[in-house]
Amino acid sequence: MAKVKKQPRPKAETPKGFRDYFGAEVAERNAMLAQIAEVYHRYGFDALESSAVETVEALGKFLPDVDRPNEGVFAWQEAEDDKWMALRYDLTAPLARVYAQHRNDLPTPYRRYAMGPVWRNEKPGPGRFRQFYQCDADTVGAPSVAADAEICAMLADCLEVVGIPRGDYLIRINNRKVLNGVLETMGLQDEGQRADVLRTIDKFDKVGEAGVRQLLGKGRLDASGAYIDGVGLSEAQAEPVVAFLTSRADDTAKTLENLRNAVGQSAVGAAGVDELQTIADLLAAGGYGPDRIVIDPSVVRGLGYYTGPVFEAELTFEIQDEKGRPRQFGSVAGGGRYDDLVKRFTGQEVPATGISIGVDRLLAALRAKGRIGGAQAGPVLVTVMDRDRMGDYQAMVADLRAAGLRAEVYLGNPKNFGNQLKYADKRDCPVAVIEGSDERNRGVVILKDLALGKKLAAEITSNEEWKEQPAQVEIPRARLVEVVSAYIGQTEKSLFEIAG
Amino acid sequence: MAKVKKQPRPKAETPKGFRDYFGAEVAERNAMLAQIAEVYHRYGFDALESSAVETVEALGKFLPDVDRPNEGVFAWQEAEDDKWMALRYDLTAPLARVYAQHRNDLPTPYRRYAMGPVWRNEKPGPGRFRQFYQCDADTVGAPSVAADAEICAMLADCLEVVGIPRGDYLIRINNRKVLNGVLETMGLQDEGQRADVLRTIDKFDKVGEAGVRQLLGKGRLDASGAYIDGVGLSEAQAEPVVAFLTSRADDTAKTLENLRNAVGQSAVGAAGVDELQTIADLLAAGGYGPDRIVIDPSVVRGLGYYTGPVFEAELTFEIQDEKGRPRQFGSVAGGGRYDDLVKRFTGQEVPATGISIGVDRLLAALRAKGRIGGAQAGPVLVTVMDRDRMGDYQAMVADLRAAGLRAEVYLGNPKNFGNQLKYADKRDCPVAVIEGSDERNRGVVILKDLALGKKLAAEITSNEEWKEQPAQVEIPRARLVEVVSAYIGQTEKSLFEIAG
Repeated sequence: MAKVKKQPRPKAETPKGFRDYFGAEVAERNAMLAQIAEVYHRYGFDALESSAVETVEALGKFLPDVDRPNEGVFAWQEAEDDKWMALRYDLTAPLARVYAQHRNDLPTPYRRYAMGPVWRNEKPGPGRFRQFYQCDADTVGAPSVAADAEICAMLADCLEVVGIPRGDYLIRINNRKVLNGVLETMGLQDEGQRADVLRTIDKFDKVGEAGVRQLLGKGRLDASGAYIDGVGLSEAQAEPVVAFLTSRADDTAKTLENLRNAVGQSAVGAAGVDELQTIADLLAAGGYGPDRIVIDPSVVRGLGYYTGPVFEAELTFEIQDEKGRPRQFGSVAGGGRYDDLVKRFTGQEVPATGISIGVDRLLAALRAKGRIGGAQAGPVLVTVMDRDRMGDYQAMVADLRAAGLRAEVYLGNPKNFGNQLKYADKRDCPVAVIEGSDERNRGVVILKDLALGKKLAAEITSNEEWKEQPAQVEIPRARLVEVVSAYIGQTEKSLFEIAG
Repeated sequence: MAKVKKQPRPKAETPKGFRDYFGAEVAERNAMLAQIAEVYHRYGFDALESSAVETVEALGKFLPDVDRPNEGVFAWQEAEDDKWMALRYDLTAPLARVYAQHRNDLPTPYRRYAMGPVWRNEKPGPGRFRQFYQCDADTVGAPSVAADAEICAMLADCLEVVGIPRGDYLIRINNRKVLNGVLETMGLQDEGQRADVLRTIDKFDKVGEAGVRQLLGKGRLDASGAYIDGVGLSEAQAEPVVAFLTSRADDTAKTLENLRNAVGQSAVGAAGVDELQTIADLLAAGGYGPDRIVIDPSVVRGLGYYTGPVFEAELTFEIQDEKGRPRQFGSVAGGGRYDDLVKRFTGQEVPATGISIGVDRLLAALRAKGRIGGAQAGPVLVTVMDRDRMGDYQAMVADLRAAGLRAEVYLGNPKNFGNQLKYADKRDCPVAVIEGSDERNRGVVILKDLALGKKLAAEITSNEEWKEQPAQVEIPRARLVEVVSAYIGQTEKSLFEIAG
């Protein structure tokens, strides 16, 4: 046999920019997504799970003048027909493809939700991964803003069902049409200048009212010391934009009145204000008041992208940032109306509106609120004192599992009992079950409270010492399931009290 | 502005070999996976979700003498460092990478489960897709066959929890070591001949005992008329192989006795039979008798790949094939012990054993049993008779949803009431709620049983005709939630009976 050149061993490492999720992280995300799916379903939305792979043309990321798709997606060429394929970078592009493909078979309007990983071929950074989850709901083919109102109500229900209490979140709604009306009122015809104003508005979150005034006018000295050129509007010209951004009042009626003033005679602006009025009325009718969902023209994220109503969900409670300073948690979901969903495929404009929940940010919020991420109960561990009686131990775990408890028998080398305890420690086992030959002969088992015993475990090496521990109790084998069941999942009583 | 060359519209189609999943298909799979995860968790297994992307070296599919990874995986080259990356083709290769990477932090033994899509760059065929789900559980670092017994018991629990009743499945266990013992007894030293025997054994399922005898000897005339050369053993030489394959008896003790005879003086063979004995004893102790899990040396799938016990789960009930002929459903899960999991990375042998459930086949089985795939209840549809009163309709769906019902308001153009009914039909809505101005003034709503009314719906065009339908009932608005709640989810009573 010819000698095969030895290859170096591959490195065992997660690819750069990717990560692995272990145990509770996976379970907690799945549980949260299942809760959200339940709400989406109750609102009449149907699940869609499209393939992770799309043709590059369908994703719309193909540049005809380069021989490779541009950065941003992970793409490869099919060997058979040289077609470029790519991993989806979001869940909206696949929805467009699926809707265009199946529009004659799907109901109109089509309400769909989708949850799953997406991939971005970007330079990874701290907390920025190249694979992450999205969780979207969209309504396709419904021109009425009743669809937008519904999406916002559904978003409020989702936040509450996963564990964000009322009062800890606020969904804010703005409307691109109102902004268009403002721009019309200002008489800005020049496309470039309109784009400049849009870009300036996008900074409102960061620079505030005074900053926006400067940026719309002559310019502004940045915090870093750099001078940022302004759009060059006069103060009078800039006024409607500022009026628009700052028009939120204490009650919705007043906010809408301010907006009507800001859009002046503009028809599209008036239509936009009417839409916001309709949305507010519908939400009120459904019981969603401004304590949960509010018209707020200072929402600027996505105003450049969307064509009608724009929504953003913020968590309003404070957390501590990495330096221990209090700050608001901020945005966990956003969306809005866009009318060109399938135009690339069919040439037709189809109205659509939708929301995307930031799965990782929402999980982080639940962790910050202590809703998830607490100590996970490990399994009950049945230890192995005598490897010839593995059948007896197996019968114990079978009994415990049949009662719905999480239980396992120790499957490593049982010779060193200390290793079994170290294992139980690593697994966060609440209880260890011990049955040596002496216990066996007397028809009893020893239950050990591992939380209580943890501090001492390191010092113990022999079985004899172990039996003198105060954190353990001896019960008849016949009471195993009863006592362990009563102990697990409660914190009031000790094993001693329960064993009686 | 320079004229941009118009690009042709992209085609809206699912990439070849991939598919999209809609509505109930997604929900049913997620529900089944959640049930299986619950069992895995109860057995002490922890979730692991590794990234979909791995380096090609970690996957072990890289051939050094070609400039592209070989077929089988979807791979691409990183722009930054020219490294080849690929989508995972199964869940075992990522487990090997993760375990090698984190082995000092993970408990030993490490029980992990994983569920998710995998990708194969293969020629697609009918029912063969290039993206599909796997659902695995493996125990790493447990040399004892108690781990194998546990996996088999867990598999039985999984099948029952998703809806395969006891008696409709059988888990069969074989052992590669027993086969090795048989080969040793035969005195087959030649590697090539041993491989030939292994390949022949693999055909036992298809050609049966007589066929295997022929193939081990001179050869066999195929059903297609082709002559297949045999391994060239004498009848006496072939006898131990046949004895091995046919050694299953009515009870486990007798099966094991037959196997002991088949392995003769071979030490590895005897060790293999002992392992099967231990597994059978442990399973019996846990209450898993041979009606559920049985020692069966005729299981040959995977014998070439695994190094110890091998398992296969078969569904034993009959279904009709595409031509209407009855046949057994067949295999839905398989696995076994393999001892080289992380050797590629670390050089060390680490014992591992695991199971993989065929997600799509198990879903197909549940569909064949009528456990899933029945008519899905669509949402309750609140129709829109007067678009200015959308707030009232929104309040109705909010009330219905608050009671846990799936409900939606019609969001298309409400002008043509017939379209609303067609929509309800497409959505499989059980009930439509109708409230025109007349009903509104009288404080009532009309409930329409859409299943009953479906046949007539096509003939109806005006609201007047509609109101004369027998499948509808008028109730006070205040009773909306009560009556609809009582009607949905039961089939005994009509809307009339419930409305009283």
